[in-house]
Amino acid sequence: MDLCLNPEREQWRELQLRCQSRQDDIRHIVAGILDEVKQGGDRALREISLRIDDSAPDDFQVSDAAFAEAAAKVAPELKVALENAKRNIEMFHAAQLPRKVAVDVQHGVRCIQKAVPIQRVGLYIPGGKAPLFSTVLMLAVPAKIAGCCEVVLCTPPRKDGSMCPEILFTAQLCGIDRVYALGGAQAIAAMAYGTESVPKVDKIFGPGNRFVTTAKQMVSTDTVAIDMPAGPSEVMVMADNSANPAYVAADLLSQCEHGEDSQAILLCNDAEFAEKVKAEVENQKEQLPRKPIIEESLKNSRIIVFTGEESREQMIDFANQYGSEHLIISMQRPWDIADQITAAGSIFIGNYSPESAGDYASGTNHTLPTSGWARSHSGVNIDSFMRKITYQQLSDPGLRGLSETIITMALAEGLHAHANAVAIRMKGGSK
Amino acid sequence: MDLCLNPEREQWRELQLRCQSRQDDIRHIVAGILDEVKQGGDRALREISLRIDDSAPDDFQVSDAAFAEAAAKVAPELKVALENAKRNIEMFHAAQLPRKVAVDVQHGVRCIQKAVPIQRVGLYIPGGKAPLFSTVLMLAVPAKIAGCCEVVLCTPPRKDGSMCPEILFTAQLCGIDRVYALGGAQAIAAMAYGTESVPKVDKIFGPGNRFVTTAKQMVSTDTVAIDMPAGPSEVMVMADNSANPAYVAADLLSQCEHGEDSQAILLCNDAEFAEKVKAEVENQKEQLPRKPIIEESLKNSRIIVFTGEESREQMIDFANQYGSEHLIISMQRPWDIADQITAAGSIFIGNYSPESAGDYASGTNHTLPTSGWARSHSGVNIDSFMRKITYQQLSDPGLRGLSETIITMALAEGLHAHANAVAIRMKGGSK
Repeated sequence: MDLCLNPEREQWRELQLRCQSRQDDIRHIVAGILDEVKQGGDRALREISLRIDDSAPDDFQVSDAAFAEAAAKVAPELKVALENAKRNIEMFHAAQLPRKVAVDVQHGVRCIQKAVPIQRVGLYIPGGKAPLFSTVLMLAVPAKIAGCCEVVLCTPPRKDGSMCPEILFTAQLCGIDRVYALGGAQAIAAMAYGTESVPKVDKIFGPGNRFVTTAKQMVSTDTVAIDMPAGPSEVMVMADNSANPAYVAADLLSQCEHGEDSQAILLCNDAEFAEKVKAEVENQKEQLPRKPIIEESLKNSRIIVFTGEESREQMIDFANQYGSEHLIISMQRPWDIADQITAAGSIFIGNYSPESAGDYASGTNHTLPTSGWARSHSGVNIDSFMRKITYQQLSDPGLRGLSETIITMALAEGLHAHANAVAIRMKGGSK
Repeated sequence: MDLCLNPEREQWRELQLRCQSRQDDIRHIVAGILDEVKQGGDRALREISLRIDDSAPDDFQVSDAAFAEAAAKVAPELKVALENAKRNIEMFHAAQLPRKVAVDVQHGVRCIQKAVPIQRVGLYIPGGKAPLFSTVLMLAVPAKIAGCCEVVLCTPPRKDGSMCPEILFTAQLCGIDRVYALGGAQAIAAMAYGTESVPKVDKIFGPGNRFVTTAKQMVSTDTVAIDMPAGPSEVMVMADNSANPAYVAADLLSQCEHGEDSQAILLCNDAEFAEKVKAEVENQKEQLPRKPIIEESLKNSRIIVFTGEESREQMIDFANQYGSEHLIISMQRPWDIADQITAAGSIFIGNYSPESAGDYASGTNHTLPTSGWARSHSGVNIDSFMRKITYQQLSDPGLRGLSETIITMALAEGLHAHANAVAIRMKGGSK
């Protein structure tokens, strides 16, 4: 972990660069897969699965028997943990349900805004050696609370064709009964266009590899919404001498174990503290099974130290410019700092709020904007599963009171038919 | 306007098709412009403007003198109308400001969700013969209410190099003082990447031609958020015999005058009523200056009649499947219908709520999802200018209460460093 002391503002941009992912264009490969599934439906899904994975299930939809088997395989203590996490996530997301807004803006002119669930949503959960069943909770729980009618989930089968029991169990715990053994760009295509067995959805959520995220990006301009742009995971820790270097190091490392392209940044105001954290990182990482991944991602990671009178302000400015997915504030008066943060996905306050609390069980969502997208995007929340429809109801006198305003504006924009739609009502058109 | 009586459900998709825009790919042209501006800044903007428009202003930023001149040119009655419309839009959007959500999910575990304004937003307003200054109100008013620090606006100069006075006046009325005489894909590039004179923004809003919307789409996967996907405008009117055929015809025509690719659909339950509307459309359109445009868009428009006992339910299903940008409900018990609508941008209730009321002055926003995107996207509202950040604060006992849950889940996902970030705190790491 490089350490940088009091960088000039001109250097900040460079210090905030994320790990550049490989730039080779896979759009044409993904476009081919999307088109194949769009045209060929289930038959194409089967062909692609055989081509890429050397096998294809008889039925993409996971059977009731497979669910029952999965439930028997999940450890009892994990079931308890999942229930606990689910309860907190439910409680916090239910509290986010938006109220109805109704305003009489003037006599006889009533405006209403109401949130309505997105009808059909599709969740994607990647496979791999350690499948992230926690993401099932983070997507399925708010989908159910929002009231989405149809929630389906695609996740790839394992090498031997079986499904990860924890993912199936968690899906069922959340009330998702339609799970498809499908991965990759072809899973995204199936949910975007629909096939004989996979229903077309209105919005697709969830992380994935480059093929999955490129497919999501491509269908999002074409036919179906997506949760947010993708990028490697990241954490920023803001710390002063009230923080514990061992805790800070543990937080940086928990980010670094995600993947080789992860990034952890420590912002602090004391070089000696920084050195202590660095030593702790070196020390703790030796015990971690994912040490090889961590050593790679530490190369993308750095420590920035701002000393002097303006250090607190500089740290805040730097953090806002970075716009971190996760931001841990282990400093005195942490809420003073938090209130000045304008861009972050999720913020962790104080010495006892590690990122892993939010990753699993505090109740907040862990599907968050990366790569600086926190400047413009929210993390997944209850709104992500709803749309806000507006309604207006004008009475005859209500429209009359606004008629001159509307007609004047419409004529000035050259839209005579717009003006006429009001004028004809004011005349009382013949019925 | 074709009339279709009791179509079978298998026919619905075809009847719901929007006007297909030209499919030739302009991505490579737009990619060239984006890259040119990204690399060359203001110099590139000047070169592109000279190449495309044969002229480039000395200074892209509109001067105070130009604002003053513009204000002198706007008709006094239009100023009054703009103030009225602005007041209603302000009142309804201010009422939408989201509340802070704070929940203690369990002892010592506090979760908070707070909306924070997007710092820098860019608005694009197209040029053309009749520039749509009303869109300035629809974008600038909520941006200001949300509290965005920096709001800039790009709009192309007219043929003679001058700016549309109504656009400048409305921008100033809304408190936007940085307006740039810039149009096309190069304007989007300037706001996405920043140049010497145009600031980089976090999110870009507003309609535009194919070059503008393609540029928005392309930068949205790269660097900056956008309001929503683009498509031609559309209205659906649901009517029964309680509606007035002349009013309905006027509403259909007001949609049709927008552009040749606009679409207007009438859903009703009586063939005789449908014929009356059709006759009114023919009759009213003769008086309208935009008759040539209307005659084109009427070719994309149609009347669907569902008769029989289930007509009300069929109309609702058809409307939900279509997912209209604007939906006018001129039927008995209109709120019964409205409450069953799951996909629409903005809904107009009753016989005195024409679309033009919402286009200008009722207080709702007129920047709405088209082409069926209403199934997954909201129209522009106060949320569009904010992000929701989550916060969590756990106390030592709070984390202790969750530690087993977190550690169990982290280990089951193979993420030991995540588990360690909790375990080290429970041991009380040496400081």
